[in-house]
Amino acid sequence: MNGTMKAIVKHHRGPGAELQDVAIPSISEDEVLIRVKATSICGTDVHIYNWDEWSESRVKPPYVFGHEFAGEIVEVGEKVHTYNIGDYVSAETHIICGHCPQCLTGKFHICENTQIIGVDTQGCFAEYVALPASNLWKNPKDMPTDIASIQEPMGNAVHTVLNGDVAGKSVAVIGCGPIGLMAVGVAKAAGASQVLAFDLNDYRLELAKEMGATTTVNSGKEDPVDIAKSLTDGHGVDVVCEMSGHPVAMDQGFKMITNGGRVSILSLPTKRVSLDVTNDIVFKGVEVQGITGRKMYETWQQVSRLLQSKQVDVKPMITHHLKLEEFAQGFELMNEGKCGKVVLHP
Amino acid sequence: MNGTMKAIVKHHRGPGAELQDVAIPSISEDEVLIRVKATSICGTDVHIYNWDEWSESRVKPPYVFGHEFAGEIVEVGEKVHTYNIGDYVSAETHIICGHCPQCLTGKFHICENTQIIGVDTQGCFAEYVALPASNLWKNPKDMPTDIASIQEPMGNAVHTVLNGDVAGKSVAVIGCGPIGLMAVGVAKAAGASQVLAFDLNDYRLELAKEMGATTTVNSGKEDPVDIAKSLTDGHGVDVVCEMSGHPVAMDQGFKMITNGGRVSILSLPTKRVSLDVTNDIVFKGVEVQGITGRKMYETWQQVSRLLQSKQVDVKPMITHHLKLEEFAQGFELMNEGKCGKVVLHP
Amino acid sequence: MNGTMKAIVKHHRGPGAELQDVAIPSISEDEVLIRVKATSICGTDVHIYNWDEWSESRVKPPYVFGHEFAGEIVEVGEKVHTYNIGDYVSAETHIICGHCPQCLTGKFHICENTQIIGVDTQGCFAEYVALPASNLWKNPKDMPTDIASIQEPMGNAVHTVLNGDVAGKSVAVIGCGPIGLMAVGVAKAAGASQVLAFDLNDYRLELAKEMGATTTVNSGKEDPVDIAKSLTDGHGVDVVCEMSGHPVAMDQGFKMITNGGRVSILSLPTKRVSLDVTNDIVFKGVEVQGITGRKMYETWQQVSRLLQSKQVDVKPMITHHLKLEEFAQGFELMNEGKCGKVVLHP
Amino acid sequence: MNGTMKAIVKHHRGPGAELQDVAIPSISEDEVLIRVKATSICGTDVHIYNWDEWSESRVKPPYVFGHEFAGEIVEVGEKVHTYNIGDYVSAETHIICGHCPQCLTGKFHICENTQIIGVDTQGCFAEYVALPASNLWKNPKDMPTDIASIQEPMGNAVHTVLNGDVAGKSVAVIGCGPIGLMAVGVAKAAGASQVLAFDLNDYRLELAKEMGATTTVNSGKEDPVDIAKSLTDGHGVDVVCEMSGHPVAMDQGFKMITNGGRVSILSLPTKRVSLDVTNDIVFKGVEVQGITGRKMYETWQQVSRLLQSKQVDVKPMITHHLKLEEFAQGFELMNEGKCGKVVLHP
Repeated sequence: MNGTMKAIVKHHRGPGAELQDVAIPSISEDEVLIRVKATSICGTDVHIYNWDEWSESRVKPPYVFGHEFAGEIVEVGEKVHTYNIGDYVSAETHIICGHCPQCLTGKFHICENTQIIGVDTQGCFAEYVALPASNLWKNPKDMPTDIASIQEPMGNAVHTVLNGDVAGKSVAVIGCGPIGLMAVGVAKAAGASQVLAFDLNDYRLELAKEMGATTTVNSGKEDPVDIAKSLTDGHGVDVVCEMSGHPVAMDQGFKMITNGGRVSILSLPTKRVSLDVTNDIVFKGVEVQGITGRKMYETWQQVSRLLQSKQVDVKPMITHHLKLEEFAQGFELMNEGKCGKVVLHP
Repeated sequence: MNGTMKAIVKHHRGPGAELQDVAIPSISEDEVLIRVKATSICGTDVHIYNWDEWSESRVKPPYVFGHEFAGEIVEVGEKVHTYNIGDYVSAETHIICGHCPQCLTGKFHICENTQIIGVDTQGCFAEYVALPASNLWKNPKDMPTDIASIQEPMGNAVHTVLNGDVAGKSVAVIGCGPIGLMAVGVAKAAGASQVLAFDLNDYRLELAKEMGATTTVNSGKEDPVDIAKSLTDGHGVDVVCEMSGHPVAMDQGFKMITNGGRVSILSLPTKRVSLDVTNDIVFKGVEVQGITGRKMYETWQQVSRLLQSKQVDVKPMITHHLKLEEFAQGFELMNEGKCGKVVLHP
Repeated sequence: MNGTMKAIVKHHRGPGAELQDVAIPSISEDEVLIRVKATSICGTDVHIYNWDEWSESRVKPPYVFGHEFAGEIVEVGEKVHTYNIGDYVSAETHIICGHCPQCLTGKFHICENTQIIGVDTQGCFAEYVALPASNLWKNPKDMPTDIASIQEPMGNAVHTVLNGDVAGKSVAVIGCGPIGLMAVGVAKAAGASQVLAFDLNDYRLELAKEMGATTTVNSGKEDPVDIAKSLTDGHGVDVVCEMSGHPVAMDQGFKMITNGGRVSILSLPTKRVSLDVTNDIVFKGVEVQGITGRKMYETWQQVSRLLQSKQVDVKPMITHHLKLEEFAQGFELMNEGKCGKVVLHP
Repeated sequence: MNGTMKAIVKHHRGPGAELQDVAIPSISEDEVLIRVKATSICGTDVHIYNWDEWSESRVKPPYVFGHEFAGEIVEVGEKVHTYNIGDYVSAETHIICGHCPQCLTGKFHICENTQIIGVDTQGCFAEYVALPASNLWKNPKDMPTDIASIQEPMGNAVHTVLNGDVAGKSVAVIGCGPIGLMAVGVAKAAGASQVLAFDLNDYRLELAKEMGATTTVNSGKEDPVDIAKSLTDGHGVDVVCEMSGHPVAMDQGFKMITNGGRVSILSLPTKRVSLDVTNDIVFKGVEVQGITGRKMYETWQQVSRLLQSKQVDVKPMITHHLKLEEFAQGFELMNEGKCGKVVLHP
């Protein structure tokens, strides 16, 4: 497809981004072109927008960023046989190599050579995006575009929460950004008997309550470990989902976990973290899991079905809808923490 | 405690039972005496009442039968340190040996030397029951007695359903007796995206709907396999919970399971079952699990928490409340299949 | 590559096969051409050679059969980037669809649309074979060609034995054909404390002993269940690997399994099998696993490493080496059961 | 039994210990009295002997220490029914409460109220020891007493190594004290394709080689991470067993683990440890396991069978045999690191 499109371009090596008219991308024989209907802002996008150390070392402006979306296929490469024009799709963000030991043994989400859409390649903050067919996920026709767009980050929440048993267990979610909020909803849907949500931001704790938290705790005002212990007869919680990235909060997670519990870490602390390995991991016989990406595509199947079946309702945490050109307002909301998920509509 | 009590006595080797006045049981140093507040009728009790082949070979009248209950401790053996008079308890039905390889490796529920309360020992269809302290489970004070009584069979449902993942999966429950009905509720609470309930009895299918089934199928009127396939895009269901004991229904379960699915069998077919091992198990890479009893006491913890947190509401399937002396009416209802759970109140 | 090659052709719908000169296959852009150095005879090949009911319904002569091999790449399709001319390879036999629910969730070995090399497509009983690059497995340079050839069936053995714990456990292998013999070696290498091998054929039981069986039992002369029980203090074995396909032997497996044990079935009984589900599966809390193919490619990694590290030595069970043109003698040996593995060298 | 016995008594709150004549302990109704045949020195005993910070805070002299042994029952409490005079036994060191959530769900080894024999109670560095019958493990009659004595620490090794798959995997053992040495043997016996042993002590690396290490690395002379990577084609090892307790060595373990690998930590660092959670745990999708004690009694069953079947031969690492009264020499050897396991014979 020829012509130009509107896109949010990370235009220089510094803070900010620009709405620009750029060429509609052309596709290779293994790719499809998708008209973007909704695209949502991820914390990673905020890092790139703000231009932090990690962005400085990883991304190469100028390019179109963004990686969460839902849209409709408008063009199909000649070698693509499993998708057609008109299909309603979202996409997995990890582009994998297929031949490292992890790929060979089915652990695609930790491929040694992962490239990330919208970070290492052109992204979806635009009217159109070109993607490999092998990364697509077909959406049910009646799924709203904003909900279909947030399946990718919901996949992080599902991967974290469901990477072990939760039915009849007490689950702590530390950090109530958008993924934490969805983790609350997933834990509740999967039968957790208690879901404790921790954050410093009361606005987000309010959203956590709407997502199903049985207890919300402002960790700046109350002692998280005391509350977790008192709600579990002094034994501690069964599962901790660490989504804050703060060393103090992470340490609180290790203090509130029960003997034999599971601590699943999705967050990315910016510095090394000091842990009491002896008392908090070894003596307690704790299992610590590093969680990255989404199991390809087992997690996508779980996400899609939890949404379709209404077991998880993510509407309460999709708080803002903006036009693509209003992106700056979206990033401001994210920086202020006065939002759940912000969805842009090209 | 001296004196007599009312009890339902399996008085002879034949059909029926009698309400009798018998001595209140005395306790040994490791036991407690419990005043029964509610006691519910299990399918096993019906077999004993009706006096089938299995009963003929196993039970030794005269004795008090029954094994599901909730009650209050009124007397405590001198070696019992973890329970007190006034404690509100139910009990695990398996009395285990503690020294077979299964017990030594923590698989107490499949102890090689299991004795069953109310089958091999005196039971709880009575005003009082004496039990080993090691078999007790403490109930929350605000749990209604009828609900506390059905924790034991709900444990069978929980053990079956949660013996593998169900969140975001399609689950078929074949056979909607009381345990099947609870399995429906547990699957729904644990995040199943579809719960298909199968039975020949429309009354019970109606209860299955109330317990949360997304589809109910009268297997005498519709083809169960066709429906299961059509609701899963032709792929079959992810999990089958076989609770009917009918060879035909069991075979249908194996036909409707998807490649790589799980078939968990709690039912006890009275004869050998013919299976298409090659096509339904091997080629499909299916996992078949024999399920017996409740994991001691992991399952009890799950049951208690699923009930306390209201993740599972069992009220719709507790359909009848009777006085202890009205037991004959309860057994009649069970034989007719015109009930969910029947609870007797001494 | 132009020209002709020698190949064993299943030439008609009846018993037997013919050595013929046929065209060297041409390759598509995703394929490679391999010069076959060693190719071994599988039980499936014997079914096709003998022309049984299953063959009648599945294979379409005339075509080249055979699917186990090792060889060297002599030509590479233009889209193949991960393999080069001169690479020493074997291949996975399952050609998968990539888009069914099983493929999407990483369970490629139970793909709903599996095609089998040498059954549904042209095979490797020939001087050359053309195969999709995505099915290849690279061999270490110093691995002998006969050993590299039998990695595919050894994968069946590894998949069966290692689909659960075996270290410090008692393992029964029922049926000592080539895969059973390798299962014995794998169980021993993985730390089994006892490996009991059962067959009716003393020649093969002798090979089982060489592969590491701690006990061999001729099931026609001694009672397999009695022996298994007596060697385990009456408790039964922890793991049964069923590789015989005989209903009687399979039933013996279910009788000798301990409470909570694992029965992994790789065999393909030709008829429905009658099982005592109540006593042998449910009451015992047994796990039954249908095993098909090899986990792609986790199993291949395990096989390759067990061979390279000399943890498993398969030499004792590679009993015969023949020229390709001597294939009839190989099939005769297989039919008589007077062999372990028969390897043909083109 | 009346009379006195020789015992190694931790006599004061400071370094050292004394051989004293003390009263033979009397037993309660649930206990047995055992005549000690062999008792081995654990690292924990060395801490108590040397009197470090941990000892200062935990143990209460004067008392008999020591907890690894094998011996013969000479007296049986009246409530003990499963053991007899003359039985040849060793014992699990953890005395558990039986009623915390961990005990109730079968995770006895992480009981919240664990007491340790020889630390919190009277130990076995003596001619006789009194122990609860519920902690005993029956030994095969033909097992040498020194080997039977080291089953307890071998249980730590087995628990660590076998807490996940190892067959066909690369396993790194960091720290080659006695438990690390046994971990090497267990990994090899369970089918590891590579076993890399790391230590600063060449004497112990030599023992690691005898126990089956495929590579030994003196981490003070060579770069452990470089070697681990180069031996795994740059991908890193599949499993790390951390048994050194040194922060630097632990960090090296996290650097050498492959994506999706398992790091099982048995060691007890004396201070908090700084970890690169983002890069070494989260992005790599690593699983970290805290390991404490032995699964009761699954691990004991594995240990006993691995020894009986000769799958693991621990003789090379039992380097010294001393009389009980020569204990000071034993502790000196341990402090100098010039030994594998030291066994005392009362």
